[in-house]
Amino acid sequence: MNAPFNNGQSLIAQVTTGPVSGSKKVYSAPDDRPDIRVPFREIVLTDPGEPAVRVYDASGAYTEDGAAINLEQGLPQIRKNWIEARALQSVPPRAVKPEDNGFATGERLVPACPAERSVRRAQEGQPVTQLEFARAGIITQEMIYVAHRENLGRSTMLAGAEARLADGESFGAAIPPFITPEFVRQEIASGRAIIPANINHLELEPMAIGRNFLVKINANIGNSAVVSSAAEEVEKLVWSIRWGADTVMDLSTGRNIHNIRSWIVRNSPVPIGTVPIYQALEKVGGDPVKLDWEVFKDTLIEQAEQGVDYFTIHAGVRLPYVPLTANRVTGIVSRGGSIMARWCLAHHKESFLYEHFEDICDIMRAYDVSFSLGDGLRPGSIADANDAAQFAELETLGELTKIAWAKGCQVMIEGPGHVPMHKIKVNMEKQLRECGEAPFYTLGPLTTDIAPGYDHITSAIGAAMIGWFGTAMLCYVTPKEHLGLPNRDDVKTGVITYKIAAHAADLAKGHPAAQLRDDALSRARFDFRWADQFNLALDPDTARAFHDETLPKEAHKVAHFCSMCGPKFCSMKITQDLRNEVAAMSEAERVALEGMRAKSKEFLAGGGQVYLPATS
Amino acid sequence: MNAPFNNGQSLIAQVTTGPVSGSKKVYSAPDDRPDIRVPFREIVLTDPGEPAVRVYDASGAYTEDGAAINLEQGLPQIRKNWIEARALQSVPPRAVKPEDNGFATGERLVPACPAERSVRRAQEGQPVTQLEFARAGIITQEMIYVAHRENLGRSTMLAGAEARLADGESFGAAIPPFITPEFVRQEIASGRAIIPANINHLELEPMAIGRNFLVKINANIGNSAVVSSAAEEVEKLVWSIRWGADTVMDLSTGRNIHNIRSWIVRNSPVPIGTVPIYQALEKVGGDPVKLDWEVFKDTLIEQAEQGVDYFTIHAGVRLPYVPLTANRVTGIVSRGGSIMARWCLAHHKESFLYEHFEDICDIMRAYDVSFSLGDGLRPGSIADANDAAQFAELETLGELTKIAWAKGCQVMIEGPGHVPMHKIKVNMEKQLRECGEAPFYTLGPLTTDIAPGYDHITSAIGAAMIGWFGTAMLCYVTPKEHLGLPNRDDVKTGVITYKIAAHAADLAKGHPAAQLRDDALSRARFDFRWADQFNLALDPDTARAFHDETLPKEAHKVAHFCSMCGPKFCSMKITQDLRNEVAAMSEAERVALEGMRAKSKEFLAGGGQVYLPATS
Repeated sequence: MNAPFNNGQSLIAQVTTGPVSGSKKVYSAPDDRPDIRVPFREIVLTDPGEPAVRVYDASGAYTEDGAAINLEQGLPQIRKNWIEARALQSVPPRAVKPEDNGFATGERLVPACPAERSVRRAQEGQPVTQLEFARAGIITQEMIYVAHRENLGRSTMLAGAEARLADGESFGAAIPPFITPEFVRQEIASGRAIIPANINHLELEPMAIGRNFLVKINANIGNSAVVSSAAEEVEKLVWSIRWGADTVMDLSTGRNIHNIRSWIVRNSPVPIGTVPIYQALEKVGGDPVKLDWEVFKDTLIEQAEQGVDYFTIHAGVRLPYVPLTANRVTGIVSRGGSIMARWCLAHHKESFLYEHFEDICDIMRAYDVSFSLGDGLRPGSIADANDAAQFAELETLGELTKIAWAKGCQVMIEGPGHVPMHKIKVNMEKQLRECGEAPFYTLGPLTTDIAPGYDHITSAIGAAMIGWFGTAMLCYVTPKEHLGLPNRDDVKTGVITYKIAAHAADLAKGHPAAQLRDDALSRARFDFRWADQFNLALDPDTARAFHDETLPKEAHKVAHFCSMCGPKFCSMKITQDLRNEVAAMSEAERVALEGMRAKSKEFLAGGGQVYLPATS
Repeated sequence: MNAPFNNGQSLIAQVTTGPVSGSKKVYSAPDDRPDIRVPFREIVLTDPGEPAVRVYDASGAYTEDGAAINLEQGLPQIRKNWIEARALQSVPPRAVKPEDNGFATGERLVPACPAERSVRRAQEGQPVTQLEFARAGIITQEMIYVAHRENLGRSTMLAGAEARLADGESFGAAIPPFITPEFVRQEIASGRAIIPANINHLELEPMAIGRNFLVKINANIGNSAVVSSAAEEVEKLVWSIRWGADTVMDLSTGRNIHNIRSWIVRNSPVPIGTVPIYQALEKVGGDPVKLDWEVFKDTLIEQAEQGVDYFTIHAGVRLPYVPLTANRVTGIVSRGGSIMARWCLAHHKESFLYEHFEDICDIMRAYDVSFSLGDGLRPGSIADANDAAQFAELETLGELTKIAWAKGCQVMIEGPGHVPMHKIKVNMEKQLRECGEAPFYTLGPLTTDIAPGYDHITSAIGAAMIGWFGTAMLCYVTPKEHLGLPNRDDVKTGVITYKIAAHAADLAKGHPAAQLRDDALSRARFDFRWADQFNLALDPDTARAFHDETLPKEAHKVAHFCSMCGPKFCSMKITQDLRNEVAAMSEAERVALEGMRAKSKEFLAGGGQVYLPATS
């Protein structure tokens, strides 16, 4: 593993590479498509009787053994042949303007990533988005890729206990036992799922966001006002996906945004999302009042050409909703929302995002940039949850969804925020109803306001629940939320916490194969296979380190006890002895015990005496 | 604040004292009972327009300003007059036996706490338990104390927004707007709540555990096999209650258990729980097969005389249930459960705890030790959740509850464990049904098995949910669960995490005053009163430290922005400007905006064009 962060300006960057502890990267192809190589992480166990456990892997080539990473060249362009076959127009790229990088010059200007890519754009009427292909009955390579990726473990599960699905409660989701490419196509065609995949992001490993797929998580990165190096920003991406982030949003502000973004997209195997209004605001010197459609439109084209896969567009923040926030405890807490509200009120005009929504659709469609319709009026406190402003905006997002769909665009919807547990479900239900089952993408929600410093936890509670209810992607919250910028440890904690929430939701929804990993880990735990328990954990390094704090010796990794109870009090050890005794019992003895159980129930139900003769 | 831990053997211990940052301890008495002084923690805010916020405080005298703590004397005996007035018999204490302290002698023997207390025990037929008094229509001082303690904030709330209760969903709980001592009596009399309060624990600040009171949390402490000093053990207690633990279980094993327990009880303002079978096992050299009723009975009396407030009794682990665990993925994971299962199977006899249950009741009643009926067959993995073994035991716990109630004993019921989200609710429903609404006390539950190192989080998700559904007390889980012994930081993390879960549950249940603190913190956040935000947090020190990592200067504590977005992008700042603009709007302008909103909804509903004229 290389040095984690490079704080210098070197552009041959050092990023974290190499396999996650105890795992190896494997690639697998669908039966009839050897050209489609789908990545998985395989955890090999020490017990020869235990099959290796494959897990979903969003970490890209960085976790290959001996990964050859060159940030200047960017990742392999696995979608190149697919996209080329679609005969999309190559266009001369928009010329980079000084304001794209905040007028940075000389030494302050971070150079762009030198990896050369031609820029493509669909012509009018030419199908380009996954939605358009799906509606036309065409199964794209991206859909085949996604089907194989989502099927992880399903064959194993179906060969074993077939009744697994019946165990969950999916609240109306329709999770099939097996994911076919045709199923993916149908989900995309109906708008229930998206594959965020800009035609200019050839390095992307496609993934699906939808209620009938695995619950996904997003991590936010971004340089602050202080100058960051490109290497440092790419490392934030690599670090996030190493631990499981399925998509990454680049929320950078300040100088060099354009050039740093080029490094991020060229080196990202996961969809990259942005909030274009942030860069537009930079271009007008930071004053929301000076924003206009032209600068915003130009920014959309700039970022779409670079290969950004989804844009947060706060087009639901409308002028008439602004007064609804005036009496809130925490007003408007979304940056994009407050920028647009400020603009609307200052000009006393309807939002230009709302007014130009069809134009925005036309631009995004041409590159297959997916919408993430922003919830600019989301509640920022328990007191403001589910209020008139929030729900008015959600209704508008529903209207906009239908317009975007009519234009051929893929859409997901952003959701709150701060919501107490008893108000979470209605958010999901209203979103499904208003937005025609377009995927929901929520920030938590945080279930209480009183724990700054622990908001990854206050929000993981809400995230797990809303994920269970049907949210397709959960935006992570780090321990630094409300307090400061997350560091490397905070990012990892946020990602792992959200992997927990997403997985807990998959289990509860009855995802056919989700429990395979739980069962493998629990068997390892019960068998005292410590190394297997660590390696099957979401964070093997921390699990091992915690164990080793009290029992550091290598010999303890096979010890049939741990530091918690010690050898004498070990319930697992005692149970293993028990299991042997029960196994050695005769059938007659077993029947006698069963009989005693039935008899005693009957006895007690009849109000008889409590003391049961020891041998009846 | 004194040095956190004293690893030496000095018995004039150094424990953590002094107020929590930004808070001061206050005592308050019910109107007509100046003799009953109930502690609260008051957070004074910097804005003179903001009332100080009082929070529930289980931390005892340790958090007083200039607290005078002398561990050798023990805490003030606030219940002394109350208990003395009940004319309970003083009995000669049971003589300490060498095996009580694991045969430790000489330098290895930790001396007992020298604080002198006489030992009391009720005579047969003499009412002694809170349940017996409640049934007799008698309101004890403990009930008055608890009522005042639970009423925290309710007057404020009732004076303000009366509709708060209607906001929650309490699943059949009956939380009143105001808690009277008579209400507490009724809850105790019905068995729906308990006040764990051994008549020999005079230092106790009484608290209630029940579905219609605030959700409580328990922290586990205990020395490991390695020798711990008494001071170190007391510090674990003090540290746990400093951050909010409502009860503490001493799970010590090894030498010196008896004497260390004397230090803990004499210095504890919260109920102390134990698992007597652990000490009984020590007395027979660690072999479960050698346990018998006599050694167990003697241990019950020993610990009851010392003042332990509740005992975990695994009387529901019956011989016929043992085979039900044989095919589990993780067998029996409860220490007490596995010990008893081993005993039953080795002797092929019904459990002596089950057979002697009425005798156990007689002993526990005489001191008002509450039952915590142990769930020895709780699931230790997602795979084993809600299985036949678990539910068979729960049904037996229901039978035992009725027997204990008939004997005059207070009872709560322990619950799982590892349970996926969709199987949590049925646990609560079955427990209420089988156990006649006796309080439920659960360990988590953990909602997935795949995150060792983060099980405070996997379990906080389940804990918040089951707390919402009706669980009265949540047993914390630390990050070291499954891996090792928690250190000081782990204990704090576990306690804060569980305060989050309990508070999220209180909010969702519609507890009348729970949201006061959320609202106060959110107002502080919106007003950029950073110090107030930190001090209102569950963990002020961490909140402050996280903020200061990026903005350390004192001037930044009043800055109207933070490091996350910086001054230009601050949504809160923009919203405050907005609020001023909206406030300055004329009535006509406001009406025009409202009209635009109504019109646009109508317009869109009719399928009209999207672009609305900017000024209609």
